[in-house]
Amino acid sequence: MAIKGNQSVEYDRKPYIYESANIVGKKESEGPLGSYFDSKIEDDMCGRDSWEEAESELQKKCFETLLTKSSLNRNEIRYIFAGDLLGQLIATSFGLAGFERPIFGLYGACSTFGEAMGLASMCVAAGYADKTAALASSHYASAQKQFRFPLSYGNQRPLSATFTVTGAGSVVISQKRGNLDVRIGGITTGKIVDYGVKDSMNMGACMAPAAADTIAANLKDFGVEPEYYDKIITGDLGLVGQTILIDLLRKQGIDIEDRHMDCGIEIYSDEMQDTHSGGSGCGCSAVTFTGMILKKISMGEWKRILFVPTGALLSPVSFNEGMSVPGIAHAIVVEKE
Amino acid sequence: MAIKGNQSVEYDRKPYIYESANIVGKKESEGPLGSYFDSKIEDDMCGRDSWEEAESELQKKCFETLLTKSSLNRNEIRYIFAGDLLGQLIATSFGLAGFERPIFGLYGACSTFGEAMGLASMCVAAGYADKTAALASSHYASAQKQFRFPLSYGNQRPLSATFTVTGAGSVVISQKRGNLDVRIGGITTGKIVDYGVKDSMNMGACMAPAAADTIAANLKDFGVEPEYYDKIITGDLGLVGQTILIDLLRKQGIDIEDRHMDCGIEIYSDEMQDTHSGGSGCGCSAVTFTGMILKKISMGEWKRILFVPTGALLSPVSFNEGMSVPGIAHAIVVEKE
Repeated sequence: MAIKGNQSVEYDRKPYIYESANIVGKKESEGPLGSYFDSKIEDDMCGRDSWEEAESELQKKCFETLLTKSSLNRNEIRYIFAGDLLGQLIATSFGLAGFERPIFGLYGACSTFGEAMGLASMCVAAGYADKTAALASSHYASAQKQFRFPLSYGNQRPLSATFTVTGAGSVVISQKRGNLDVRIGGITTGKIVDYGVKDSMNMGACMAPAAADTIAANLKDFGVEPEYYDKIITGDLGLVGQTILIDLLRKQGIDIEDRHMDCGIEIYSDEMQDTHSGGSGCGCSAVTFTGMILKKISMGEWKRILFVPTGALLSPVSFNEGMSVPGIAHAIVVEKE
Repeated sequence: MAIKGNQSVEYDRKPYIYESANIVGKKESEGPLGSYFDSKIEDDMCGRDSWEEAESELQKKCFETLLTKSSLNRNEIRYIFAGDLLGQLIATSFGLAGFERPIFGLYGACSTFGEAMGLASMCVAAGYADKTAALASSHYASAQKQFRFPLSYGNQRPLSATFTVTGAGSVVISQKRGNLDVRIGGITTGKIVDYGVKDSMNMGACMAPAAADTIAANLKDFGVEPEYYDKIITGDLGLVGQTILIDLLRKQGIDIEDRHMDCGIEIYSDEMQDTHSGGSGCGCSAVTFTGMILKKISMGEWKRILFVPTGALLSPVSFNEGMSVPGIAHAIVVEKE
């Protein structure tokens, strides 16, 4: 039976992660995970005329790399599930239109890669497709322009702020084994959780309650303890959000401190790169997953992890109207075969 | 076998449309379809402080009505698939957070209701849920503010312009028969189609190529002629877009003129309501479907229709940067049992 508990699915026929691809900006390539990435851009504008077009170019290059690495023709990808942070998903629309594939546009803020992997794996496990792709991107400059201040304004960033990752990550999900011995065991789809936090410079605090909610739901639905997973890896809580997550779960009697990891904390070295609380953006979890995490699972270093991309449902309009920043998190069980 | 042709799914166990609900603004309630709607708001602000909050309120009221009409507890809806036109889907995030259900945020511009019905029905047909909900909204004032001019600017609207529908529509999709004898036979997921049109006041022209692409794909994938459907109903092409759609398909040897209908043309009386080319927005197809279309199928007036919500992937940022407005359309086969 596929339905598991209140908000999870466990696959009878676990789909494979057939192949992955990513591309990052210069700063990300110089960080602690630099050696894990497929390719990098030297010019943050990607040779285009605007930050938004640059982000579209990241998506395009990422999907091209995915096709090359997997030796697939674009027509073998039956559906693309993709999204980004920009209003009306323009990085996705303009980045992926040229591939002429049926597409589901998704918005889950920085949790979008989790939402995409969830739906893409459901689709394959149900037999609606042999192969689907999940993709998400973010770009530091387009995100700053969209959500906060133009770069040229030169505002100071508080210590709780995270740094939006410039990068795109993608996977092909398939019923057949590909180049990786990694499968998706199940998913836990998140609810919108709003603790009323209104600080757009402290996204970790906005998202931690949603991450705690989804992780607790996953453990309950699957009837397991945190030890079931070698690692529980959130998307972009950063240092501030990590502390809150661990505290919130501890109050529910769940201790994940010894196995928690956060893509936002891993991707930069604050000491060397002045990134404060960590990295963020859809691209943060997407490139860390397709870079480091998949490789560690594929090599057998980790047997099973819970991957939990986290999103802060922030909009410049709602923020300027004094609204809170609700959070959401979607969890994916990823296993070594 | 569920996979059909290049981009369609035909369900072996066709899911039911269990119940529907909608809510519209004053103008829509005074239009030709007024008597079909469940409820209307008298005050376009819905008693809230901003247009965005008003649209959230529409989503909230719509979902509440859906639960009441279907006599379901919110916890019986396993997943919500929902979206709107605003940047970062704030109408959805703030409108539906209070129901505390696992949610997939979707963006397909005005095609979002089709995208939502597609994924919600795939999910039910695959056995991932007993019941899912699909929901989409738009609001004239929040859309004008987001995409064009603030209302108080009082700009003139060209004759090719459409009028964004204030309203929200939703359905429960279920493996079990509900209050309607209507089922979803299959879906055809659209590609992004960009003919390079750059006129944000002529959305019909931006979307018609995508509608033609999806309709032609549906007919090919299912191996049928237009006569297979009693009606082929697009979302919000309006009068200008309708002409283009019919012409584009005729060039491919497909004639749908005698059975084409467009929600945007049906919802207003241009003569009486000064709406020019017609209605638009996610809400346009969502309220017309859940209002008129479902009732006509349920009553047996139509046995089978192809419902094709159409979206123009317009963003104020990309538009101001001189980019085109690509289109997308998702088709749903809806049948009287």
